[in-house]
Amino acid sequence: MNVLIIGGGGFIGSRLALKWLEQQPLSKGKITLLDRFIPEHIMKNPEFKCVEGDFSDPSIINPLLITKPELIFHLAAVVSGEAEKNFDLGMRVNLHGSLHLLEKCRELAYCPKIVFASSCGIFGGDVNQVLTEETAPKPKSSYGTQKAIVDLLMNDFSRRGFVDARCLRLPTITVRPGKPNAATSSFLSSIIREPLNGRPTSYPVAPSSPFWILSPKQVVRNFIHAAKLPNKTIGDDRTINLPGITVTVQEMIDSLEQVTHKGITKLISYQPDAFLQSIVLTWPPNFDTKKADALGFTADKNTIEIITNYIQEENIQVPEK
Amino acid sequence: MNVLIIGGGGFIGSRLALKWLEQQPLSKGKITLLDRFIPEHIMKNPEFKCVEGDFSDPSIINPLLITKPELIFHLAAVVSGEAEKNFDLGMRVNLHGSLHLLEKCRELAYCPKIVFASSCGIFGGDVNQVLTEETAPKPKSSYGTQKAIVDLLMNDFSRRGFVDARCLRLPTITVRPGKPNAATSSFLSSIIREPLNGRPTSYPVAPSSPFWILSPKQVVRNFIHAAKLPNKTIGDDRTINLPGITVTVQEMIDSLEQVTHKGITKLISYQPDAFLQSIVLTWPPNFDTKKADALGFTADKNTIEIITNYIQEENIQVPEK
Repeated sequence: MNVLIIGGGGFIGSRLALKWLEQQPLSKGKITLLDRFIPEHIMKNPEFKCVEGDFSDPSIINPLLITKPELIFHLAAVVSGEAEKNFDLGMRVNLHGSLHLLEKCRELAYCPKIVFASSCGIFGGDVNQVLTEETAPKPKSSYGTQKAIVDLLMNDFSRRGFVDARCLRLPTITVRPGKPNAATSSFLSSIIREPLNGRPTSYPVAPSSPFWILSPKQVVRNFIHAAKLPNKTIGDDRTINLPGITVTVQEMIDSLEQVTHKGITKLISYQPDAFLQSIVLTWPPNFDTKKADALGFTADKNTIEIITNYIQEENIQVPEK
Repeated sequence: MNVLIIGGGGFIGSRLALKWLEQQPLSKGKITLLDRFIPEHIMKNPEFKCVEGDFSDPSIINPLLITKPELIFHLAAVVSGEAEKNFDLGMRVNLHGSLHLLEKCRELAYCPKIVFASSCGIFGGDVNQVLTEETAPKPKSSYGTQKAIVDLLMNDFSRRGFVDARCLRLPTITVRPGKPNAATSSFLSSIIREPLNGRPTSYPVAPSSPFWILSPKQVVRNFIHAAKLPNKTIGDDRTINLPGITVTVQEMIDSLEQVTHKGITKLISYQPDAFLQSIVLTWPPNFDTKKADALGFTADKNTIEIITNYIQEENIQVPEK
């Protein structure tokens, strides 16, 4: 099976590529990665075909689609904070780029399977509500709006038989390695990652603020699981709110202390930020994921497990007390 | 106040224009109507500026927007059956045309009030559910998908202060005068209108099928009401499910008999149609319109009133027994 991973150079995309290859050895030489930037260890892997470029540019994406990959992972996006600050860029990539992808698949008339990285950021408003797929998206960000629109398009294009889409609404993925990025949720990784690297960091919301989170390990597992689900299992509605766990900033900090030591907390401070608060505090943290559970999607046990896995996977040397 | 009515040549649009003029005499000479076709009685009315053309063509809409109408009624659409049969046309007009309208308003940076004709056709699926604005749109038609997407865009463009939108999700409007059209709901007008004109007609669904309906009189009233509501009254979510009444096809036929006479029923027959059923039977007929009620939107009392009004307004001579 030929596989195209759009956003395959990113943190989740490149892990997904490696995990897919590991689990499906017959995929060797049949995985194409597209991203604006692709890290060296992926570029050098002879099993991958790598293309650097903007997926929302038809001259970049069309030649890849014309080869008719049977499975397309679509993870490319302008992240939440960037899409809020640069409206045109967010619309161009998140909305028009995704719509072009769908239109091109339709034109090629071969109904590929598409696993789309949607977001729980499509929801916004009453944070006390317990959300399901039957809850109306009320995004309080342009990013959330764009993702919610693509979910609707994926549903209609699937209903008409142009594609066979599965839209995974991702919780906040944490802990992400590397540097802080323009996602408004970036601090949820930084508060764990930066102290582990011996660097100071801050969070912009009250420590009691709850979030809905999932580890990189679980999200990669869930992407692969989504790709393997038979079309008919999913039903008419192609959107799936992924399972996650609800944790407060304080609980994450406490877990970090528990996994390492008390002293590490000194590197973390509270620095309120009105812009970040205006977005992240509208994300409801409570989900009923009956649909995802029944379909076999999974979450992490707790933040201790998430942090322990992160330290192992990234081979972190925890700084001394 | 300068007013632009997009779709102003249509049945609802032209009635809205006349009613607005009647209620706001100061609007004389300040109402522009845009539609692909505008009926003669509207064209000849010296109080209207009439433009014939396709609203989704930037060379048509841009010159009208550049004059910065403070209030825009957006009623132009490719109807449900047509958008289902001609996917490209529906996408071009219903989605891209509306998005261009929003983008052009944003570019002109004057935040016009927009009253958008959305549709209860954005919902689809479990017809036993009672729907509110908190229920996720699960359209089972491309028309419903396109309307749901524009609702999301109207919300985000309003949140960002580019426009001040009010999206009215219309029940099925009945009774419409004139000829049957390509809307999948067209039969809900035909079963009343055609027998009153002495012509045979049919319905494609079981007589016990319930629908959510509203009369032309009430929808025009509600459009004008929406235009007058202060921005802050509406809140963050600009979508409003309009009030209506739930009636079965049989109840409509019974009411027609009651208003006229028994013999009229002979002109109406049941002719199942799988295509029409696949769309109209997914429209939920039960709504909780608390939000609309609180904002002062209104529905008809019953089908007797709807039919009686139609006969009076259209000056119909009921055929003899």
